[in-house]
Amino acid sequence: MEKIPCDLLIIHGLIVTLDDHGTVVDDGSIAVTLGRIVALGPSEEMKRRFAPAHVLDARQGVVLPGLVNAHTHAAMTLFRGLADDLPLMDWLHHHIFPAESRLTESWVYWGSLLACAEMILSGTTAFCDMYLFEHKVAQAAKEAGMRALVGEVLYDFPSPHYGPIENGLRFTEELIQHWRGDPLIRVAVEPHAPYTCSEELYRRCMNLAQKHDVPMVTHLSENASEVQQVMARYGRRPVAHLAALGVLNNRLIADHCVDLDERDMDLLAEHGVHMAHNPESNLKLASGFAPVPQLLRRGVCVALGTDGCASNNNLDLFGEMATCAKMHKAVASDPTTMNAATVLRMATRAGAEALGLKDTIGQIRPGFAADLIVVDFSAPHLTPVYDPVSHLVYAAKASDVLHTVIDGKVVMENRTLTTIDLERVLSQVRAIARLLQP
Amino acid sequence: MEKIPCDLLIIHGLIVTLDDHGTVVDDGSIAVTLGRIVALGPSEEMKRRFAPAHVLDARQGVVLPGLVNAHTHAAMTLFRGLADDLPLMDWLHHHIFPAESRLTESWVYWGSLLACAEMILSGTTAFCDMYLFEHKVAQAAKEAGMRALVGEVLYDFPSPHYGPIENGLRFTEELIQHWRGDPLIRVAVEPHAPYTCSEELYRRCMNLAQKHDVPMVTHLSENASEVQQVMARYGRRPVAHLAALGVLNNRLIADHCVDLDERDMDLLAEHGVHMAHNPESNLKLASGFAPVPQLLRRGVCVALGTDGCASNNNLDLFGEMATCAKMHKAVASDPTTMNAATVLRMATRAGAEALGLKDTIGQIRPGFAADLIVVDFSAPHLTPVYDPVSHLVYAAKASDVLHTVIDGKVVMENRTLTTIDLERVLSQVRAIARLLQP
Repeated sequence: MEKIPCDLLIIHGLIVTLDDHGTVVDDGSIAVTLGRIVALGPSEEMKRRFAPAHVLDARQGVVLPGLVNAHTHAAMTLFRGLADDLPLMDWLHHHIFPAESRLTESWVYWGSLLACAEMILSGTTAFCDMYLFEHKVAQAAKEAGMRALVGEVLYDFPSPHYGPIENGLRFTEELIQHWRGDPLIRVAVEPHAPYTCSEELYRRCMNLAQKHDVPMVTHLSENASEVQQVMARYGRRPVAHLAALGVLNNRLIADHCVDLDERDMDLLAEHGVHMAHNPESNLKLASGFAPVPQLLRRGVCVALGTDGCASNNNLDLFGEMATCAKMHKAVASDPTTMNAATVLRMATRAGAEALGLKDTIGQIRPGFAADLIVVDFSAPHLTPVYDPVSHLVYAAKASDVLHTVIDGKVVMENRTLTTIDLERVLSQVRAIARLLQP
Repeated sequence: MEKIPCDLLIIHGLIVTLDDHGTVVDDGSIAVTLGRIVALGPSEEMKRRFAPAHVLDARQGVVLPGLVNAHTHAAMTLFRGLADDLPLMDWLHHHIFPAESRLTESWVYWGSLLACAEMILSGTTAFCDMYLFEHKVAQAAKEAGMRALVGEVLYDFPSPHYGPIENGLRFTEELIQHWRGDPLIRVAVEPHAPYTCSEELYRRCMNLAQKHDVPMVTHLSENASEVQQVMARYGRRPVAHLAALGVLNNRLIADHCVDLDERDMDLLAEHGVHMAHNPESNLKLASGFAPVPQLLRRGVCVALGTDGCASNNNLDLFGEMATCAKMHKAVASDPTTMNAATVLRMATRAGAEALGLKDTIGQIRPGFAADLIVVDFSAPHLTPVYDPVSHLVYAAKASDVLHTVIDGKVVMENRTLTTIDLERVLSQVRAIARLLQP
């Protein structure tokens, strides 16, 4: 029988597919052609069937869908560790905002490339970004071969990038048109938060998102102070406020959602809003504990994000999964809360769904895009292995990711990046940091 | 001028000494002879002064005192991921206790060697252990070149190791005598917890500890259920109970201390008790949030531990530092709580003090033992660098540890273990795990 040519064959992995049946294939292989998964099955059979142009050996490690970082500000890698352990307003007004006022296109480009390097090295294959000069984030992601949903941050006051808001909306529309049809990069409309965006701005943003059929992304109910501000201004809590504006729907990705009451949770569920949960940032900024188990019980799609490197201080979703799985147990006084399978699903399938890609990524399944990672399970801290899903959430580390594949392209092989000139990026970011050093 | 011979010279590191003055030496070097630090200073000067037998290049990374794991059950690496996300009693009675009933000397030896490998790879140079067959933990630590305070777990009911408690006390005394004077291994008396040890047993344990001038280690007030049990039996909370027994003093290391009231905290402070805080285990087992900021304000020496691998599921103190620094901020609703310097001190100096080694380890200082680690700061997730202490707590990972030195001996160089036959250990542990696989 003649072998079928394919671009890539990933061999000898324990495949955790995350499909609807929870299929796990022991010593499995995955064939990839033109960016898509074409088949998966037992390695010996797959090796007989396919003639690959390139082979990646999983070395008996675990193959799973690439992780999805549902909320970050990639270029904030530039500010990693610039200022920690400070009161929120001091941190923002005396450190982050002054640093951001100096941002340039070039800085955002290099900071975003560094973020892509860190994400690929830690098994993240797609991310949702909100920042300034977002066209440079898109450019960096595209060059790195990463899947990204990007959007320029929009608010009432003038932006260090585009100036007045009219320019911001026009810039967003141009960005949407520029990237339309791209296999990796998509664009969202991204109003910052209910305390920085007027009612009119939220309505215009949702109209723009609907006109172009793209997602909308916003910070929402991140902490008690935001709730107080919005209550004082509008007489209703942030979630109810957005509901009243008619902008709560399943096009929306709401970041943080920490300070929620029962009615808020019901509203998010009723309107099919996607939520991006950022446990480490919520802890570090003392925002609190998002009621994720309650949201999941209501059927809300809760994805996982790291937030930016100024409030985390990394882009590592393996760490985020472990923190997420552990912290909610203590909050709920229940060790069965947020089990490993639930959290792994948040970091993969739920992320795909939040980004509007549930039929494209998030599972290892024929017809889906080949966004997947191989995790080496041979390290002492992963020995022995009883349950691969437990290990992925509670024991595996970013440094265990061996290969990363996005849209069929091998962007990291044996921990070497193939799309990013790492030394150049590190050197550029260090030069920028010397200008920012307090 | 003739050069001074030394055993080891660690060159070109940013030295975070953790000494009383918070000294940091830029591009510094450290000379080591006969296991002790003999000098530190600027690299060029040190290279002129010393003629080393061996040189370790820190490559502009950070050199700091080795981390101290103040509470673990090393051999529980054997049960890593065996059973997660279960109700506490189900987990203990249907998974952990049955597995432990099958323990042998040999299993504990291999599990402990695996733990030593993981700890050395993640920058831990000393640990405090409580388990069964503890002579094999001591043997493993000694062979691995690790510093350890070990102790056989003691309780009222028969032990799978020594049988009745009389044997356990005799075994402990023999262990103390066997290791007396050893430069690496010390022995403690270790009654398990107030709900498993009688009043008489606690008193006999403290007498034994005093007789031999060794520390005593116990679990204490780990969760609400323990407090209820002890209240029901003795009419007082666990801390007050141990105070009434006269066993609260500065010889004691108390593990967990999660469920404390104001009086408990006062008692721990008044009696100079050392506490081992295990944030990730406390989260994963849904025990809760230990009131560490309040204890630190009272002057209690709070060290950091991972607990065993069945409830964490790793021995990584870098992860533990990040979790510790972040989670208390959310609990306190204060982002200035538990800053990076405080947490780094817990993982180094406070650990040394808890283990009774405050004049031996925990600082990089002439006359102190050369227990130190080099952390490579060149990775993308550590770029840029504004504040090395922030990076050590919030951004560095276990995998960034480049070299590990204990008592002057290089136990890991360029991430290769020098004292442990890793492949043999992994293979032995995998064979044991096949017998335990559910």
